[in-house]
Amino acid sequence: MVLVGPHPAVADVRRAVREALADLGGTGALVLAACSGGADSLALAAALAFVAPRAGLRAGLVTVDHQLQPGSAERARQVAELAASMGLAPSEVLTVTVGTEGGPEAAAREARYTALAEAADRLQAAAVLLGHTRDDQAETVLLGLARGSGLRSISGMAPRAGRYRRPFLDLPRATTVAACRAMSLHPWDDPHNDDPRYTRVRVRKRILPMLDEELGPGVAEALARTARMAREDADALDQWAESAFPNCALSDIAESVILSVPELEKLPDAVRRRVLRRAAIAAGTPSGALSATHVLAVDRLVTQWHGQKAVDLPGGLSAVRRYGTLILAISPIV
Amino acid sequence: MVLVGPHPAVADVRRAVREALADLGGTGALVLAACSGGADSLALAAALAFVAPRAGLRAGLVTVDHQLQPGSAERARQVAELAASMGLAPSEVLTVTVGTEGGPEAAAREARYTALAEAADRLQAAAVLLGHTRDDQAETVLLGLARGSGLRSISGMAPRAGRYRRPFLDLPRATTVAACRAMSLHPWDDPHNDDPRYTRVRVRKRILPMLDEELGPGVAEALARTARMAREDADALDQWAESAFPNCALSDIAESVILSVPELEKLPDAVRRRVLRRAAIAAGTPSGALSATHVLAVDRLVTQWHGQKAVDLPGGLSAVRRYGTLILAISPIV
Repeated sequence: MVLVGPHPAVADVRRAVREALADLGGTGALVLAACSGGADSLALAAALAFVAPRAGLRAGLVTVDHQLQPGSAERARQVAELAASMGLAPSEVLTVTVGTEGGPEAAAREARYTALAEAADRLQAAAVLLGHTRDDQAETVLLGLARGSGLRSISGMAPRAGRYRRPFLDLPRATTVAACRAMSLHPWDDPHNDDPRYTRVRVRKRILPMLDEELGPGVAEALARTARMAREDADALDQWAESAFPNCALSDIAESVILSVPELEKLPDAVRRRVLRRAAIAAGTPSGALSATHVLAVDRLVTQWHGQKAVDLPGGLSAVRRYGTLILAISPIV
Repeated sequence: MVLVGPHPAVADVRRAVREALADLGGTGALVLAACSGGADSLALAAALAFVAPRAGLRAGLVTVDHQLQPGSAERARQVAELAASMGLAPSEVLTVTVGTEGGPEAAAREARYTALAEAADRLQAAAVLLGHTRDDQAETVLLGLARGSGLRSISGMAPRAGRYRRPFLDLPRATTVAACRAMSLHPWDDPHNDDPRYTRVRVRKRILPMLDEELGPGVAEALARTARMAREDADALDQWAESAFPNCALSDIAESVILSVPELEKLPDAVRRRVLRRAAIAAGTPSGALSATHVLAVDRLVTQWHGQKAVDLPGGLSAVRRYGTLILAISPIV
């Protein structure tokens, strides 16, 4: 008798899921796979169905019907039925209504994560697995680079964030496709994934293949590695800024923060700017509206002081320098 | 009478040179422009010739004849003569012989910088200006990204490094081309700059234009901004690692370093890995041969300890964990 192990791609996706859940093993907790029916998340669902019972965990699945394409309800129902046949229970369709705010991609994403969070709460899931692969990560890093807004924007997606876990972030998309084929699963190809009106689709279909061709293969891997290191670097610098903030803050009451210029001057540029960013947000500036340009203008009050007037910040705030302090507060009405 | 200022591009290159030399102003020090005869460095030479006398500085020029193309000596002589006619003195041709080590690009670079350093010493120059533009910086960042070796590799070129200064790092290449045209200077187009056998040429001619087309204009600017922030971030993290190293090092004698595991465990991932890197180099590992993979293997002796054997490092060293310490030293002969 010849013992044959699983196909290498199947072994890879199972190992990735097993490692991502190692800390929960034996607890009987419920883990959900979020599944669109595409190759990545179908491989994820199948791997979870295999791994969970062997690891002392319960496994379920949720699939979101965005109601954006004809037949989406039927397709979601098929995904849920397939999952049930794999032994995933519960196996639910979450039907959402996608708004318009922030464009179609952002609105669909917002609706999807709201539904996932609600389902995870209701079902008391310990973790929700997402099928993002190394290729998705590379795309995210390139999109972040094109914004040029610093370390966080090239950190890509987190392997873990709250209840979400991404077991496939180090696996190529091709592995999930091969795993589906080896398990005779038929993924659904979302036509949106080929629509070049989406920036992410152009990154996937045109930019990454071209980078591979011109720079040599392995670009996606290099970008994913960059993301991992950038995330660690950003975490360490945030930690430094967090511990430096109390030393710099002379006063931090609602809607105003007073910082000590001599304390700020002791910090390296990268840390001082992070402290200034925290201070502006603590004083009431909406974080989404605060750009690197704003922070640099405030920073010049510290490092290139020549009697500048107040720097305006989003949310009706301003930053002024007075007698060795930096005051971030609601602008006085003049 | 109508007073007409210089062409905007000419004003831009002059301003950039003036700001880069602000700290030297009035000292009478000699500043050299390194000039290939291309648009970037020709605009640099002309801007320096204008700015230096008005800033109380002396200005000279060096041009390197790499002896790699027919007529290179004649071309270098023409650049030096043009510079002399602009009032740059001294104006010298540095003739070098390019080796082969590390490939043609690296060998030419090595020969060039050796000659520049020698000339700067001999002429007692306070600074050597290099003509790299924002586009060169964007190319450097993309090449670093493709290597995926972390923050330093996406930090691009430094605005200042030792005696070298790069005044044009925030200016588009197009500005230097426009400045040359406005000053009736005729740049030399190095055929190497169009040779697609060079990776950098493919980045310039194919990748960056395609990124601009697919992601929207401004990619070069975003990449240069990323480089600037990455450099500051890397500097701050290096500073942290430098100050943490003495706390972690129980002993640091030639060719061996002993680190305290409990002290290492207190550090964030990004800082701990930098401390481990420093320790390996202090123990004698050649820094160029030490990869992120090596550092990660040593790191697992700290963070994922399950009795692993020694980790081999370049230069005949190894890292072992013994009783709460990490010993990096020449491997014992067994």
